[in-house]
Order: sequence, then structure tokens, then C-alpha cells
Amino acid sequence: MAVKGIQFWFEFASTYSYLSVMRIERLVVDTGIPVEWKPFLLGPIFRSQGWNTSPFNIYQAKGRYMWRDIERLSSKYNILFKKPTEFPRNGLLAARVACMAESEGWCPEFTQKVFKANFAEDQDISDSTIISEILESIGKDGSHEIARAQSPENKELLRKQTEEAINLGIFGAPTFLVGTELFWGNDRLENAIDWYKKHIV
Amino acid sequence: MAVKGIQFWFEFASTYSYLSVMRIERLVVDTGIPVEWKPFLLGPIFRSQGWNTSPFNIYQAKGRYMWRDIERLSSKYNILFKKPTEFPRNGLLAARVACMAESEGWCPEFTQKVFKANFAEDQDISDSTIISEILESIGKDGSHEIARAQSPENKELLRKQTEEAINLGIFGAPTFLVGTELFWGNDRLENAIDWYKKHIV
Repeated sequence: MAVKGIQFWFEFASTYSYLSVMRIERLVVDTGIPVEWKPFLLGPIFRSQGWNTSPFNIYQAKGRYMWRDIERLSSKYNILFKKPTEFPRNGLLAARVACMAESEGWCPEFTQKVFKANFAEDQDISDSTIISEILESIGKDGSHEIARAQSPENKELLRKQTEEAINLGIFGAPTFLVGTELFWGNDRLENAIDWYKKHIV
Repeated sequence: MAVKGIQFWFEFASTYSYLSVMRIERLVVDTGIPVEWKPFLLGPIFRSQGWNTSPFNIYQAKGRYMWRDIERLSSKYNILFKKPTEFPRNGLLAARVACMAESEGWCPEFTQKVFKANFAEDQDISDSTIISEILESIGKDGSHEIARAQSPENKELLRKQTEEAINLGIFGAPTFLVGTELFWGNDRLENAIDWYKKHIV
């Protein structure tokens, strides 16, 4: 199989996905590496491991560490960050919209705005009003796009994409896929790009 | 409290600790930053989270990923690596020796040899014969040092050190402590050093 670029797998509730969502475009801009944005849901994966919420809520020391780590990293990357008052927020609707948007070319713009709403502006991205406002802000008809995103076909698309993630061995977000190589975590984004340059180009 | 350097918390069974054990000295050599080596046991921490083995064994997709990631990273860092036939290996004796060695100045040399035995030579580091051979190879009397390491006072020292880790909020290895800032994971070693340079020196 010819490798066409880097697949960027992300989940809207994930803090480390936020960092990569805000970083990936500037990192690849001079490389010419195409990025395919692949929203998926961690919920089913976590549930299959016996977790009913984020492991950062279940394992408290890890959770405390994560918030501080995100704070330090966003400051280092110069990314706005404000700890959300609710975590994790349900990203199902956003993921459905993003899934549909990817084939139409507006996934990155939409996704960046949703992540910013959640992690820089403490807005409730599970609320369709918020998603609608974000859609309008990028020149879309909010209620129309939300209706399309909730069509049975599009719901199925996201379900399939989450299954594909599981079949690829993905267990967390963000994950970068370069050919058959998985790179897990925002801190592996540079490694994924280096791997592409060394082994694919 | 005056910060005297970087505390390097590691666990002998931990694959990512191996990478940091082999890297930390060359990374700090030109900086003059003192490193305090702090062996501890992850076992009690994992058990308190309901895990009776490494999470890499419990969560299989994560485990498969970890082995490939370690393979790629050790190749990148130019560190010898051979997947051990047994994982995790019990590092209790090694940790006791290392704990004692730290105050006597020979912890790094001993620790590097034990990690290499486990992760580059597939040797059983839970076996006191192997630990004794390593001690002899660095000019120590093997059985004498092992007896000292197993004295009640020294056993207590390691127990206290593991408690200290828990109280600091440590939940995995390696972890780097710079003042009150925790950095978790081999991929945060450079961040810890940068933090020290920026905020401490």
C-alpha cells in the first residue's frame, strides 16, 4: 500500500489531542506531508478496558499530573489553555461533524475551533448550540450541518472509524499512523513526522 | 527549600526507565546539574490501583505499542535493546542495592549494568547470582554487598523511598522531580532539564 501521508487520530475530549490539533499544521506546513484527520471515540475503547470515564479521572495522581503537564506544555507551545470546569466533555456530536467534514475539506478549521472552545474557553462542546455557533463562525449553516452529521449514514461512518482505530491497535489519543507505524501521544508528533521523512518520502 | 538538582526516580522493571538510565548522564554532563538517583518500587503503587502486573501486560494494545516504541526509540538513541523473555522482572534486590549505593556514589554505574542485563542481554535480574556478578564486575564483593542491601535498615530505606514517591504524586517511571515540578516519562527528560535551566539555575 502506498503511504499518502500521516493519519492523525484524535478524540474531542482529549487534552493531549488539543495540543496536537493546534500544532500539527504548523509542523507539517513546510514538509508537504499530507495529513488525514481521523476523529474517533475513545469511549468504547475505554469501556472495553473497564473504564467508564477518562483514566485521568480514575487514576488521580495521573490526573493531577496531566493538568499540570498540559499547563506547562501549552505555555511552552504558546497555545491558549484554560482548565475546563467539566472533564471529559462528550465529543460525540463534534466527532460526527468532523467525520463528515474531513471528506469535504473543512475538518481542520472546524476541529480547531471546537478544541479551542473546550480547552481555552471552557465552553460545553456537548451542547449542539455551541457546535452550531462554531459552524456558523466558519460560514456554515449550523442546523443544516448538524442534521447531516446525525444522518444514519454519517453516524455509521464514525462508528466504522472507531472500529478501524481499534483494529489498528489504537488505544489512546492522539495517535499518528505513518504506514504501519503507530505513534501515540502529542509528544510523538515530531517522531511521526521524522519517521515519514526518513522512511516514506 | 533550595533545589540541588534533578531527582531521577526509576524502577528496575520499567522499559522507559531503561532509556533514561542510559541517557541522563550524557544529557546533563555539560550542564553541571547534579542528578540524584532515586530507585523505588512501582509494585505497591500499581497494586493500589488494582493492577497485579505491569499495565503493559494488562492492556494488550498498549503493551504491543510499548515494545515497538521502545525498539524505535532505542534505535534512535543508539541504545542496545533486546526484548526480555520475561516482563516485568522483579527488581526488588536490585533496587535495594541501588538505594544503598546512592549514598556511596556508585548507584549510576551499578544501575546502568543491571538495566543493560535486563533489557539488552535478557538476563534474570531477580536472580541474586546475576546481581552478584554485576557487583563483582564493578569491583565490589557480591555476597557482602547483597547482605548489606538486605539488612533491615536498608530494606526500610527502600520502603521509605517508595512511600516518598507516592507522597510526591509519582505514579509511573521514570519520573523527574525539579523543585516541586514532576515530569513523567523518558520523553520528558529534556523538558525537566530545560525547566531546571530556566527556573532553577
